[in-house]
Amino acid sequence: MIVRKNLTIGLVGFGVVGEGIYDVVNKTPNLQAKIKKICIKDLKKHRNAPLHLFTNDVNALIEDNEIDVIVELIDDAEAAYHIVKKSLKNGKSVISANKKLIANHLDELIELHREKDVSFLYEAAVCGSIPIIRNLEEYYDNDLLNSFLGIVNGSTNFILTQMNEEGLSYAKALQLAQEKGFAESDPSLDVEGIDAVNKLCIVLKHAYGIILTPEQLLHQGITKIKESDFAFAKTHGFGIKLLASAFRNEHNEITAFVLPTFVSKESQFYTVKNEYNAVLLGSTLADEQFLYGKGAGRYPTSSSVLSDISALSFDYRYEYRKSSFGEDYHFTNDNDILIYLSYPKNTQIELKTFSIQHEFHYHDQQIVVAKVKIAELINSNLLQNNDISIISLENIERLYFQNLN
Amino acid sequence: MIVRKNLTIGLVGFGVVGEGIYDVVNKTPNLQAKIKKICIKDLKKHRNAPLHLFTNDVNALIEDNEIDVIVELIDDAEAAYHIVKKSLKNGKSVISANKKLIANHLDELIELHREKDVSFLYEAAVCGSIPIIRNLEEYYDNDLLNSFLGIVNGSTNFILTQMNEEGLSYAKALQLAQEKGFAESDPSLDVEGIDAVNKLCIVLKHAYGIILTPEQLLHQGITKIKESDFAFAKTHGFGIKLLASAFRNEHNEITAFVLPTFVSKESQFYTVKNEYNAVLLGSTLADEQFLYGKGAGRYPTSSSVLSDISALSFDYRYEYRKSSFGEDYHFTNDNDILIYLSYPKNTQIELKTFSIQHEFHYHDQQIVVAKVKIAELINSNLLQNNDISIISLENIERLYFQNLN
Repeated sequence: MIVRKNLTIGLVGFGVVGEGIYDVVNKTPNLQAKIKKICIKDLKKHRNAPLHLFTNDVNALIEDNEIDVIVELIDDAEAAYHIVKKSLKNGKSVISANKKLIANHLDELIELHREKDVSFLYEAAVCGSIPIIRNLEEYYDNDLLNSFLGIVNGSTNFILTQMNEEGLSYAKALQLAQEKGFAESDPSLDVEGIDAVNKLCIVLKHAYGIILTPEQLLHQGITKIKESDFAFAKTHGFGIKLLASAFRNEHNEITAFVLPTFVSKESQFYTVKNEYNAVLLGSTLADEQFLYGKGAGRYPTSSSVLSDISALSFDYRYEYRKSSFGEDYHFTNDNDILIYLSYPKNTQIELKTFSIQHEFHYHDQQIVVAKVKIAELINSNLLQNNDISIISLENIERLYFQNLN
Repeated sequence: MIVRKNLTIGLVGFGVVGEGIYDVVNKTPNLQAKIKKICIKDLKKHRNAPLHLFTNDVNALIEDNEIDVIVELIDDAEAAYHIVKKSLKNGKSVISANKKLIANHLDELIELHREKDVSFLYEAAVCGSIPIIRNLEEYYDNDLLNSFLGIVNGSTNFILTQMNEEGLSYAKALQLAQEKGFAESDPSLDVEGIDAVNKLCIVLKHAYGIILTPEQLLHQGITKIKESDFAFAKTHGFGIKLLASAFRNEHNEITAFVLPTFVSKESQFYTVKNEYNAVLLGSTLADEQFLYGKGAGRYPTSSSVLSDISALSFDYRYEYRKSSFGEDYHFTNDNDILIYLSYPKNTQIELKTFSIQHEFHYHDQQIVVAKVKIAELINSNLLQNNDISIISLENIERLYFQNLN
């Protein structure tokens, strides 16, 4: 019979999630975990926990021999990186929800936690309450994963839903997301697609054993989507979602990118609204699997962190089976994708490397449907041009567009 | 760094799933597993595997010292029970997909595999390719699970979909399900809701640590659903699904049952069609989580078995955390449920213990919407009366029915 370890936790950060974790750990005696110290920046601010728990010196946690695990929940990725690294070096297990930190330093941190024989868990970093990392690690470890598609950022999904369904302006929708605690402290991470591409990097490691940094991946956020794009989507019965996608071809080459994407009414993603996240896995044996749950907010994130704490009490650690035991996958930006471009009529846009399939006017916009190599799209200046909406059509039957114009 | 064990497998049964497993194990060298012997009933039948692997003596597997794990994939629950028991007693780990066997003997088999310090895994027994057992075990172990709702039987979901959308008769739809390999060899297990209630029993153990036998649970299959019930559903924009449900109340009392259930267009279940299964978990922290995937068929089931084999190579075993470390949950049939009854006009039905909310005629049927204690419904003779459709309204807003008649 297995025994659960009593864990002593040092908590770094006491924002919405930190306070949530403090709350639920205390309300879950079965967990046999205790929060011994909490590190915060501002000791003067009122906190809903006994004063003696707080310190502003993170070393008081990292160097406390009684503390087994550091739960790191701060926004500042650079500071978090140093805390995580030092904690692992000091032989403490670490739980983190900071996707930026993880996406940018995963290789080093994996090596470090293996060397020190401790755990480094981060389920809360991807898709809030949906146990996607754990399932990729444990469950899909031998099935050939053909595709990963995900709405992985609750904030942008909330904004897109409010704009599309309630007719809110982008600014109003963003403000509402922030009020509801769905947006990062710096909203540009969300709306520029950076949060999503960070998460996609983490997913690629667990899904295919590939380590990439966010800059290597095509990514585009939601800031350039225009009213006419929503109108176009509505006319054709589509929704617009920010999707993180990864595909495997028969040569085990992986393509991955983050783009606003048209989804049809038949797509499972069509009904994923507001702060919900969802993942659609395509695999050779299990076929299609769809996981859906809340991707942002205090309790859904706490739920994932709590689950990591519980797993840790049973000595769980990620095994990165795809890298350790798996196939050899190679990443490429050499594949074509089908995209929709819209920009003001009479604008001159250089599309030499694009294979244009349709061109037409819609409202005051020029619409172009074209195939392009991902690498070419990255190298073009279209991603930086604020007049151009770029929306993936990879999720819409290509045939559909035969009869469009 | 973790090491994967080389597993030597004894395979019992070589039907669609058995052959599928043989196939994928051989095609997955990373698994480091080998199928040494295969036990079948009929040695004369042609098989797609080398002859020397086959035997009709199961003891040749159970008593082979080289074999670490018995993968049991036969239909006969009684025979399977003896094979599983003997294998565990002989110190072998066991993987099974036989829900009937597991639902009826779980307590004994848990004790046995713990005593012998081996694993007993059965992910494929519930919801085909959806990793529901693993996620209940590992991921939702501390979050308060408020409800479990599931389409857990692919065969009946296929039949209901074909009847509703293609207008097939019940008999034609059943035949098609059997042709496609979605139905059990004895279809009554599926269509009478017995397969679903077996699965619900397994779920209750992992979700709440409760052991019940199928007879203790209210269950009703799909055989009594009439054309007029489908018409009624369509008129109101509902679908009809066979749902396995479990609910927790604030006193940690659990109610559970299997009933055909009306679901509205807004329900995630509405779009779950044909052989797909789906589970909706409601919990205090993670809120709503929805898992969706193929629930029947050769490869989806093989996928789950393969996943268990892989887990076993890392020494995984279920810990039944809810029973070992969890809250104390009590089962009760004392709760009310809201149901819809339809039966031919002018039939006399005894409904004394029912709190009737609406009564009206629809087509040639008498429709009654009533609240009733689950225990009373079990004790009434309505479940056995072939003229009466009983469909749960627990998933429809109760208010909806205020304006019905």
